[in-house]
Amino acid sequence: MTSVPLVFSPRLSVSQVEEGRDLAPKFDDRGLLPAVTTDFATGDLLMVGYMNAEALQRTIATSEAHYFSRSRQVLWHKGAASGFVQKVRELRIDDDQDCVWLRVETAGGANCHVGYRSCFYRGIPTGADYPGAEGCLEWKEEGKVFDPAAVYGNSPNPTQL
Amino acid sequence: MTSVPLVFSPRLSVSQVEEGRDLAPKFDDRGLLPAVTTDFATGDLLMVGYMNAEALQRTIATSEAHYFSRSRQVLWHKGAASGFVQKVRELRIDDDQDCVWLRVETAGGANCHVGYRSCFYRGIPTGADYPGAEGCLEWKEEGKVFDPAAVYGNSPNPTQL
Repeated sequence: MTSVPLVFSPRLSVSQVEEGRDLAPKFDDRGLLPAVTTDFATGDLLMVGYMNAEALQRTIATSEAHYFSRSRQVLWHKGAASGFVQKVRELRIDDDQDCVWLRVETAGGANCHVGYRSCFYRGIPTGADYPGAEGCLEWKEEGKVFDPAAVYGNSPNPTQL
Repeated sequence: MTSVPLVFSPRLSVSQVEEGRDLAPKFDDRGLLPAVTTDFATGDLLMVGYMNAEALQRTIATSEAHYFSRSRQVLWHKGAASGFVQKVRELRIDDDQDCVWLRVETAGGANCHVGYRSCFYRGIPTGADYPGAEGCLEWKEEGKVFDPAAVYGNSPNPTQL
């Protein structure tokens, strides 16, 4: 892996952070910020991950999404195992610079370890349509895009109870 | 404020959480989960907030976005102060049920306390276009939708350095 310098601007004032042009991201006490990834063509939310400074720098440097895996505690080049690399077509940062938005095109079209296109394949009815928590979720995708067992084999499932 | 029962399903197994129909959300050690809010019509990312159990329950019950304000440490009915209420047209949850996605229509079209339509009004160039952190951010919105001083007056700015 090539070396990537981890250089961001210092956070000097609220006006610099909110209204300025310096990239001065704020990482939380774990050294992470949330990264929201949507489909460039449709706007659908695909996944929410986390980045440490190195993941953000590598995403900027390569235009491919890198995250920090909280379950494995390692830098995670999305698609390195599955082939579903996310090409970053646009990268944005929010007002207080503690969150980034990636608009991506995904090789193969799958983004979720369960096998779906998006991690958000189930809906929660609201208002009068909500029947209570038990059995309420509704499927929003037709079916899986790939078979997780075929792609990930015996790798541990990242979902924790 | 009317009473809202805070009842979700218990988390029993990975297959129940990932492949089942029970709403069994996972809140982190602060009692929160991230909530990603996009524009129902355009798919643009508007904001990323956090919900505690009560905020999620109220969002479900009312079809209006409620968050938990980390800076003020209170339940936050978005738009109660500014008028920019977010009507939830669709609510989704992710594979391991520790993140929700709100697709909303916002009264007045503004969602960011700085005055923009979206909190993500600046872009970060990537790859060969990235000139370094200083001065790199590019404006992605034409201008502000409202004047924060007129709407919020002397309320403290939530951005923290």
